[in-house]
Amino acid sequence: MREKKPEKLKQEVRKEVKETYEQIKKMEIQGATDVALEAVKSLKKEKEEEELEKATNLLKQSRPTEPMMRNGLKYIKSRYREGEKIKKAVKEFQEIVNNAVEEIKEKGATYLPENAKVITHCHSSLVEKILIEARGRGKLEKVIVTETRPRYQGRITAEELSDKGIPVTVCVDSARIELIDEADISLVGADVITSDSYLLNKIGTHELALTSHNIKGKNFLVATQLLKIAPMTLKGKRQEIEERDPKEVWDHPPKGVTVRNPAFDATPPRYINSMITEHGVIHPFNAIDNARKRYPWIFNQI
Amino acid sequence: MREKKPEKLKQEVRKEVKETYEQIKKMEIQGATDVALEAVKSLKKEKEEEELEKATNLLKQSRPTEPMMRNGLKYIKSRYREGEKIKKAVKEFQEIVNNAVEEIKEKGATYLPENAKVITHCHSSLVEKILIEARGRGKLEKVIVTETRPRYQGRITAEELSDKGIPVTVCVDSARIELIDEADISLVGADVITSDSYLLNKIGTHELALTSHNIKGKNFLVATQLLKIAPMTLKGKRQEIEERDPKEVWDHPPKGVTVRNPAFDATPPRYINSMITEHGVIHPFNAIDNARKRYPWIFNQI
Amino acid sequence: MREKKPEKLKQEVRKEVKETYEQIKKMEIQGATDVALEAVKSLKKEKEEEELEKATNLLKQSRPTEPMMRNGLKYIKSRYREGEKIKKAVKEFQEIVNNAVEEIKEKGATYLPENAKVITHCHSSLVEKILIEARGRGKLEKVIVTETRPRYQGRITAEELSDKGIPVTVCVDSARIELIDEADISLVGADVITSDSYLLNKIGTHELALTSHNIKGKNFLVATQLLKIAPMTLKGKRQEIEERDPKEVWDHPPKGVTVRNPAFDATPPRYINSMITEHGVIHPFNAIDNARKRYPWIFNQI
Amino acid sequence: MREKKPEKLKQEVRKEVKETYEQIKKMEIQGATDVALEAVKSLKKEKEEEELEKATNLLKQSRPTEPMMRNGLKYIKSRYREGEKIKKAVKEFQEIVNNAVEEIKEKGATYLPENAKVITHCHSSLVEKILIEARGRGKLEKVIVTETRPRYQGRITAEELSDKGIPVTVCVDSARIELIDEADISLVGADVITSDSYLLNKIGTHELALTSHNIKGKNFLVATQLLKIAPMTLKGKRQEIEERDPKEVWDHPPKGVTVRNPAFDATPPRYINSMITEHGVIHPFNAIDNARKRYPWIFNQI
Amino acid sequence: MREKKPEKLKQEVRKEVKETYEQIKKMEIQGATDVALEAVKSLKKEKEEEELEKATNLLKQSRPTEPMMRNGLKYIKSRYREGEKIKKAVKEFQEIVNNAVEEIKEKGATYLPENAKVITHCHSSLVEKILIEARGRGKLEKVIVTETRPRYQGRITAEELSDKGIPVTVCVDSARIELIDEADISLVGADVITSDSYLLNKIGTHELALTSHNIKGKNFLVATQLLKIAPMTLKGKRQEIEERDPKEVWDHPPKGVTVRNPAFDATPPRYINSMITEHGVIHPFNAIDNARKRYPWIFNQI
Amino acid sequence: MREKKPEKLKQEVRKEVKETYEQIKKMEIQGATDVALEAVKSLKKEKEEEELEKATNLLKQSRPTEPMMRNGLKYIKSRYREGEKIKKAVKEFQEIVNNAVEEIKEKGATYLPENAKVITHCHSSLVEKILIEARGRGKLEKVIVTETRPRYQGRITAEELSDKGIPVTVCVDSARIELIDEADISLVGADVITSDSYLLNKIGTHELALTSHNIKGKNFLVATQLLKIAPMTLKGKRQEIEERDPKEVWDHPPKGVTVRNPAFDATPPRYINSMITEHGVIHPFNAIDNARKRYPWIFNQI
Repeated sequence: MREKKPEKLKQEVRKEVKETYEQIKKMEIQGATDVALEAVKSLKKEKEEEELEKATNLLKQSRPTEPMMRNGLKYIKSRYREGEKIKKAVKEFQEIVNNAVEEIKEKGATYLPENAKVITHCHSSLVEKILIEARGRGKLEKVIVTETRPRYQGRITAEELSDKGIPVTVCVDSARIELIDEADISLVGADVITSDSYLLNKIGTHELALTSHNIKGKNFLVATQLLKIAPMTLKGKRQEIEERDPKEVWDHPPKGVTVRNPAFDATPPRYINSMITEHGVIHPFNAIDNARKRYPWIFNQI
Repeated sequence: MREKKPEKLKQEVRKEVKETYEQIKKMEIQGATDVALEAVKSLKKEKEEEELEKATNLLKQSRPTEPMMRNGLKYIKSRYREGEKIKKAVKEFQEIVNNAVEEIKEKGATYLPENAKVITHCHSSLVEKILIEARGRGKLEKVIVTETRPRYQGRITAEELSDKGIPVTVCVDSARIELIDEADISLVGADVITSDSYLLNKIGTHELALTSHNIKGKNFLVATQLLKIAPMTLKGKRQEIEERDPKEVWDHPPKGVTVRNPAFDATPPRYINSMITEHGVIHPFNAIDNARKRYPWIFNQI
Repeated sequence: MREKKPEKLKQEVRKEVKETYEQIKKMEIQGATDVALEAVKSLKKEKEEEELEKATNLLKQSRPTEPMMRNGLKYIKSRYREGEKIKKAVKEFQEIVNNAVEEIKEKGATYLPENAKVITHCHSSLVEKILIEARGRGKLEKVIVTETRPRYQGRITAEELSDKGIPVTVCVDSARIELIDEADISLVGADVITSDSYLLNKIGTHELALTSHNIKGKNFLVATQLLKIAPMTLKGKRQEIEERDPKEVWDHPPKGVTVRNPAFDATPPRYINSMITEHGVIHPFNAIDNARKRYPWIFNQI
Repeated sequence: MREKKPEKLKQEVRKEVKETYEQIKKMEIQGATDVALEAVKSLKKEKEEEELEKATNLLKQSRPTEPMMRNGLKYIKSRYREGEKIKKAVKEFQEIVNNAVEEIKEKGATYLPENAKVITHCHSSLVEKILIEARGRGKLEKVIVTETRPRYQGRITAEELSDKGIPVTVCVDSARIELIDEADISLVGADVITSDSYLLNKIGTHELALTSHNIKGKNFLVATQLLKIAPMTLKGKRQEIEERDPKEVWDHPPKGVTVRNPAFDATPPRYINSMITEHGVIHPFNAIDNARKRYPWIFNQI
Repeated sequence: MREKKPEKLKQEVRKEVKETYEQIKKMEIQGATDVALEAVKSLKKEKEEEELEKATNLLKQSRPTEPMMRNGLKYIKSRYREGEKIKKAVKEFQEIVNNAVEEIKEKGATYLPENAKVITHCHSSLVEKILIEARGRGKLEKVIVTETRPRYQGRITAEELSDKGIPVTVCVDSARIELIDEADISLVGADVITSDSYLLNKIGTHELALTSHNIKGKNFLVATQLLKIAPMTLKGKRQEIEERDPKEVWDHPPKGVTVRNPAFDATPPRYINSMITEHGVIHPFNAIDNARKRYPWIFNQI
Repeated sequence: MREKKPEKLKQEVRKEVKETYEQIKKMEIQGATDVALEAVKSLKKEKEEEELEKATNLLKQSRPTEPMMRNGLKYIKSRYREGEKIKKAVKEFQEIVNNAVEEIKEKGATYLPENAKVITHCHSSLVEKILIEARGRGKLEKVIVTETRPRYQGRITAEELSDKGIPVTVCVDSARIELIDEADISLVGADVITSDSYLLNKIGTHELALTSHNIKGKNFLVATQLLKIAPMTLKGKRQEIEERDPKEVWDHPPKGVTVRNPAFDATPPRYINSMITEHGVIHPFNAIDNARKRYPWIFNQI
């Protein structure tokens, strides 16, 4: 079935679905986990196949780089086909996600060394949970976070960690190569894991990995649910990298100047030391194999 | 002689000197070349040794990372000691600088390949001159420039090149690792060259060099006058890296969050392919030797 | 059972088998896929175990570096033991191969970026299929192919792609380091995948991978069926590298000059970004695991 | 159940268990395989669950970096719970280990090239078995072994190989970077494999791997049973690195001098070319997956 | 003075000059040293400035990538301007070259290790002289030489060394990555040294350097006269890389296939361990400084 | 003049010379600076050319890897030939050395960062002087020193620094890769600098440089007088690496075991960030050029 345009679909779906679509689109809901949970939750009242189809079609078009949301919607549909009620399936998916988050938080906090000094980039709720847990265990000394142009999500991280009493230092993105000398480990979140083990994450992650792993000899870690695997990359499809509004970078550039605003970059697996997942601390080369074991439905009919 | 404090010295020097000091301090005068030329020019009316001494002492305290200014002031003092009039020496220094700039512009434009696509960082008047000259010769296709947080000097570069009809693309600093694929060469300016061949330049230069030279196989070039050699690094003195006002990075950070704002970083010579200087296109390992030949006075009584 | 010498076996096998053996040996049949298909096809009329044993023993001795042929012969034997008719098994194997080829062509063409400029080496029918498919989709701009000494198979690639209207550039093998600047991706085929994820392919592949991945920052891709896994490498057996007739390199060398002619080299997995297989786009570290899933019979009684 | 202190447990266990505990602690029994075999053997007479629990709790506290022993004890316990007699389970485990050792010896000797010149470090019974087998097959030309400070286990290797008529050269650990030019391959044993594919082995292994793989282009191999996987690293627990008595390094250091004596270091998987295991010659990134297949009980209730 | 076209100049110069020009153009005279010596010798009968000017202008147009010839012609002109007779100056230049060659031969043979196994590329008379001298001293065990497509100059090297009783092995260019394991050092000649220390030499040199220095940890040496410095590279002029007749690569390519034939490539100084010059064994970063000391006239009025 | 054997020469020289020769040979005098000073001092009473010739010939044979001693003896001879009295020349040389040492101490202490944590290897009096001076200035926090097998000179360093109240940590040589994480800079001395900028120093220096510079991103510094340049390396002569008594490594090795004991290794310049010399903080690529400027007599008649 060819996908209908969002404008058309919006008129044909339930109010909850439409509103969730709008909120994700405007980034009122953001972060891979929250987007997935909210999109799935909006399906709670669906009962029929056609309704469900339309709703998922609309939701998938809210943002291009969100495989966890797509995997969530797929879960609901495949449970429905197995005869399960949608409401129940939604609840199941929420539990899957919550369990994954808890396991990663636990493993990540365990993995950090004593007196850890961590550098991070952007804002990842998983990373934050790990850091706060580690602080609670008395293991975390300090966090350095890059401001993360163009949307300054690093400031959100700074504020939320500082609120928990964690000493935080902020710098411009390019200054990481200087400030990393004060850290002993790098830790970031993830938006997408591809079938050939690339990490798609906020623009700036690739250079942090490069500097950390190749130049400064500091381990580069990723905290992520295996739910972020993009199964269609197995088929050769490239995970599209969202190019966002240039005004985020420069509001009123002079005429004749082009402004580019790619939202993510792709870090190769060779710069990643370990991946903290719900299924264990592994290397990214084992991500897809572990995802197949834990979430076989992700790989159905891709 | 121990240096007097600026507040004291300001009362003892001529008006021109004091004003120039203030303008450099507030960055109304900026860029290594302009700072050096203006500082030297403000000495034009000095006649006596003591006056000269006080004036140079004040000017040197306007900014910490400006060896070209220091070298300029040293030139005036050594010519004065050789019996030359200060006014004449000032004129000589202006000619030295102008010649150097012209030679670098000429060599740089010659060196760029046909249909050059260049990535640069921050704002360097030398780089701009080379690019405009290359465009005039029909060799320059396109320029990519990073915005250069925290002060966005990349936007100045973008605007000035765009005014000359050169196609310019701007991106956030971290996006260079993606956009560099559209360039075939990197070209930046310099603030300082140390005796062990490090390049001090705007924060972000180090990662551009690393990405360009080590990861993407694209030559990384520096355009610089040999007048930017810092002779006191020969004696083991580290070139101080200016840490600027944190408010440039984050105006009102939450309480408890430290903001760091180093203005420069130090790129190792192994990431630099060639250095375009007034004395020829060389490798940075030959910079100090060439500076000794062309400007022996820089190395007197260091 | 100790293997009989080919000369003896040739007298004891059916005409079709003997002729196929000769054609592979003289390279009238070549390319891993064609060799496997033809060898398997020549078994079509076999009915008894002893016959089958002799035929496969002869065929295996036609060329030393052809695990796909060996895997094909093993398939027939294991199906026979399961009670299947040989003729049927031959047909099944042909389907297995054809499906694999189709899936790789589809995935590879999908994976190539828009306006792709591809560098390749030697002649691989899989690579050719991907490139022609990509051209058909309007995605392929240009192909660079090295001549591939000593047998100039690069010229076959050049001619066949040029026939399809694809712009092709040819250069000597050593010139790849210069011409790769005009490409944005490297793509080669495979003869063997070992259990520790090395790629055996035509001599020259290793240096293309090194230059492409390590020096020029361009992704290095391999298109291959998982049927090319050499299961006996799991047991520590080294995949023998065929040393071919020195006359291919230099017809009449002066007396006293030794001429060496290794036909393949072994590229380490760390220079390979992605492997396009019938089971998905993966990293070579996942090749053996995927082969186990898709073709478990390859690993029986190794 | 919280672990009791050894002093307490020693009074509550059978004599054989207590004695084995003491011998491992004093390093009268050493080497991962021997430690595992002896610890397991000491359980032979246990009959009841509580007894077994106490015995394994004591044994586990004999040395901190011995996952193979822990995995062995776990095997006994899980077989007991399945209803098997302990004596039988002990015998099964001995067979598991013996089979693994035989398979690795066979595969390793097969894998070594003709006229092999091998550099090794420390003393590994697996490595020794491979080398002696290869010598028996006429494939081994020479062995270089580093003395392995602080306990000089390299001398044990030298003596035992020399006894078998193998030419051996010994040098101080730092001289490996010079003597490696006379070798064509590096081969070491293992103490632990982590879930993210790190190799824990005698201090000095990391630098041998680095020099061999990165600087001298010589393959770095590890011979190890998959029984050395540390399953609790999946949960984020760091494999503790034993810090041994400083007197091993310097008997009477001057007052005020701190002596450090870490017994192991952690070699990253990117410096390892191949891992010779009982389940095949693989890359370390496949170690955990292969261990899961062969020894699923290792991963129960971790 | 703008350069006249060769066709015009040929009619205005002496027969010897014209013939030499033709022989260099047709590569009847080749090799940087021979080209320089013959070009200079052809000036022997010149007496007047205008004649000399025309002759040198013609000769310089015989081949684009020959700075040693250009430097030779410059020597004659500058000696003439100092009042020396041309015939005398020609003799002086011959002595300069002969001395340089002798010194390099001596230093190179001294530098090679005992029982040296050397890999080389293409045909360099300097390299050959060093190897024959080393053989005479009983130090040279074996030489490996790549065939050097497209003109197979490696075969000339093979033949000439073999004639002297030196064991020689030949392989295709791409096979160097396999055969280098049998060598312990790489040694090549040079066509050009640039002011930023790049080595221009026969296509294939860059990959030999890369493989040798970066991957196999074998020192990469260059034997060259400092007379091969290209002084105009100081001014930013790129040393043109001759693109030769595509028929050398492929005589009759199919229509639509482009054949590229760059004759040289540019090896970066970071892959070169040592440079054996008439002024000593140095690093390429010191080449220009040493050339300035030994041949100051090269740098006059560039 | 061909060198006479030491046994013969000992009978023909003054008692002071003979005794000094013996003390150097037995390593009762050691360290490049002390050896040079004592050898030169022993010439104090020489008056005639023949005497001087014999004495220097004997002394040069005391140890093979001591260019600073050779350069010192050369200084005396060349001053003698210029008509200076030997006693005076000896005094001059002592002043040259003392000045060099003072300047390096001063520059080195200035160069170290605040709160420096330094890792060093072996025992270098220059390094010790720098560290003690830095401690005196309140800049040095901690020193890590490797024991330096086989002769444990690291313990001398540990003891002497600890005596000055500096916190010192000692570890086996191989443990540097773990303990370097606690340092922020590496600093070693030098025995020889070659004409192609290699550093010869105690075995173990090469791996410290590699680990420090390439893997851990920590600057690797060398403190050395330019008097340690080996001028005969310019002529292609390899600086012989002393192979010392195997008993230093293993007193009673089993029969059939070869023990190798190279005393030095050669660190390539690409692992060295800066060289602290009497003539300034430079890169090793500038060492020979600076030595020529400061000590031109070293290069006379090499």
